[in-house]
Amino acid sequence: MPALTFQLAAKDPGSKARAGTIQTDHGTIETPIFMPVGTVGSVKAVTQQQLYQDIQAQIILGNTYHLYLRPGTEVLEAAGGLHCFNGWHKPILTDSGGYQVFSLAANRKIKEEGVWFQSHIDGSKHLFSPEKVIDIERSIGADIIMAFDECPPANSEYQYVAKSMDLTHRWLDRCFTQMDATPDKYGYTQNLFPIVQGGTFTDLRTASAAYIASKGAVGNAIGGLSVGEPEAQLYEFTELCCDILPADKPRYLMGVGTPWNILEGIALGVDMFDCVMPTRNGRNGMLFTTKGVINIRNKKWATDFSVIDDGLSNEISTYYTKAYLRHLFIANEILALQLASIQNLSFYLWLVREARKQIINGTFASWKNEMTAICKQRL
Amino acid sequence: MPALTFQLAAKDPGSKARAGTIQTDHGTIETPIFMPVGTVGSVKAVTQQQLYQDIQAQIILGNTYHLYLRPGTEVLEAAGGLHCFNGWHKPILTDSGGYQVFSLAANRKIKEEGVWFQSHIDGSKHLFSPEKVIDIERSIGADIIMAFDECPPANSEYQYVAKSMDLTHRWLDRCFTQMDATPDKYGYTQNLFPIVQGGTFTDLRTASAAYIASKGAVGNAIGGLSVGEPEAQLYEFTELCCDILPADKPRYLMGVGTPWNILEGIALGVDMFDCVMPTRNGRNGMLFTTKGVINIRNKKWATDFSVIDDGLSNEISTYYTKAYLRHLFIANEILALQLASIQNLSFYLWLVREARKQIINGTFASWKNEMTAICKQRL
Repeated sequence: MPALTFQLAAKDPGSKARAGTIQTDHGTIETPIFMPVGTVGSVKAVTQQQLYQDIQAQIILGNTYHLYLRPGTEVLEAAGGLHCFNGWHKPILTDSGGYQVFSLAANRKIKEEGVWFQSHIDGSKHLFSPEKVIDIERSIGADIIMAFDECPPANSEYQYVAKSMDLTHRWLDRCFTQMDATPDKYGYTQNLFPIVQGGTFTDLRTASAAYIASKGAVGNAIGGLSVGEPEAQLYEFTELCCDILPADKPRYLMGVGTPWNILEGIALGVDMFDCVMPTRNGRNGMLFTTKGVINIRNKKWATDFSVIDDGLSNEISTYYTKAYLRHLFIANEILALQLASIQNLSFYLWLVREARKQIINGTFASWKNEMTAICKQRL
Repeated sequence: MPALTFQLAAKDPGSKARAGTIQTDHGTIETPIFMPVGTVGSVKAVTQQQLYQDIQAQIILGNTYHLYLRPGTEVLEAAGGLHCFNGWHKPILTDSGGYQVFSLAANRKIKEEGVWFQSHIDGSKHLFSPEKVIDIERSIGADIIMAFDECPPANSEYQYVAKSMDLTHRWLDRCFTQMDATPDKYGYTQNLFPIVQGGTFTDLRTASAAYIASKGAVGNAIGGLSVGEPEAQLYEFTELCCDILPADKPRYLMGVGTPWNILEGIALGVDMFDCVMPTRNGRNGMLFTTKGVINIRNKKWATDFSVIDDGLSNEISTYYTKAYLRHLFIANEILALQLASIQNLSFYLWLVREARKQIINGTFASWKNEMTAICKQRL
């Protein structure tokens, strides 16, 4: 089967935004796209039916670290991969586990060979090496496999970031070697995306982006941002990377972000985004809507019988009222988590679909400014 | 609008089971029926869309005690009643709050006028009297309003149960008076069901059933069972009550029960059931299926890629596998609670639909024996 391809459909005249189409063996992804995070094979509190129908997701993420620990590659292989296991038959992207190893696991030891760590679940010891991670991602059955990298914290010093970047580059070469040495696991093409690192240092970012670009991958990612740095730096280094990464391949800005972060990222030339924000904040009662941000636990919504978001077209957002959803949160009902997650993900997917339309219309830049103001508004 | 009506469609030749149709202003209920419990206006972990489509519920319960405390009658009245508030537009039955006052609230004081209690949420003091409870149930907008009663514990002594029963009867008269003195709240008919009490004492049960029968209500309930007494007594006193309560009115056995309890109840002449068991046990990983009971957390399901229940026809039960659902439970995913709740409620609704078919076919008695054995089987 052919590797992932990317076709540019339109470029916005007023920004670096582009609209495109990614073709994978599990179907087409229209970009710019937001990818809901399905950590252990489930986008939290949402059924796959709701992902297809209400949210209109086109691709979801799986977390290699989590899936490796539970259910484990043995079960996933027996199932025929994650698509068969969880019933999501559109594209799946897996991160490399690098980020989770550094944020969740205990007793990490970074060595040239890889990272030794202890499971946050049972304390068992494991090694993630570039080769091992590629094998795991192949077993999961990802359509898009992220390279194994180290993601240094936002406040890291230059020397640390420089050394870490070099290690990430050496690991990347080993990832490509392992990809070449191993077959696609389940009959469809699995595609490796390398990741730019280099922290918030211009020379390192530039060097890393150039190195990543030189690999000729079918798609490229920008990592190590949105880890605590100021918003201005997020945008500055996103732009720097986008300008170096090839224009004819999709660009993925990892772990970003707020609705306005995504709009700005699109304007800078990013095609793919993922973030736990819509689901995590949703579970805490923060709603993203086409009119602005809502804290649904607020007393002011107690008797507001307007629907959750009349700017969306999905069934959940246009069926239940703000007053009902507030009540569900106050009464600690599980349904609250479901409805809020569906609302927020539906909004994020609506936002990128709208952005795509505006890019194709050539009206993205002005729409983006209006939409950013709306998105930031607190209702 | 006319009061609730009940039409008998068939009687089983081999038992006292009957199939019928209850007509309410919110639509038709085919009996025997199981009613999912929507405590605070939400059947836990299930959307109303899933209740309509997957589960095929025909009527749900609301708990007066919980809805009175949250969101409160002011919000419910502003919404136009619970149907409008939660988007469930088929019939709703509300219990009287009596059971919750005795099981959840603190510092209860039972007096002739009613029960003083403190909220389990904020300790605030409240009085539930027959008049107050009828007013609340009218405000909630129930199609079927349960009378305010006292439900004594299973181990209560004769003297206590006798006094309690007399009080429940006096309260019932006040409920009827209050129903007659107040109009239907939202334009459709609200119907009062009285409740037989009398514990597990034959003379008291007989007296109570006769008193309830004498009121000529459009439907009647059997309360105070399934509160800890042996299964044989549950059946014995259910039968005693059914034999006295009018045959041309629906009979509702409150808070029952396991699938086999329901089959036996149907055989004894019961038409309506409710219980938190399918949702509560589902949330703990206990699945009721057409093949038997499953503890889905068990290791044996880890690589069982058969669907949850191929004996059902709903999308959720026939889409996801046992292995995936087990994984969701082990990984503490919210989706586990949703899928298990939908499976169990779908099974309960399937069970009563099947029972109805068998009654109409005249084959209920033998089917019941087979099905009881299957239901009790541990897989």
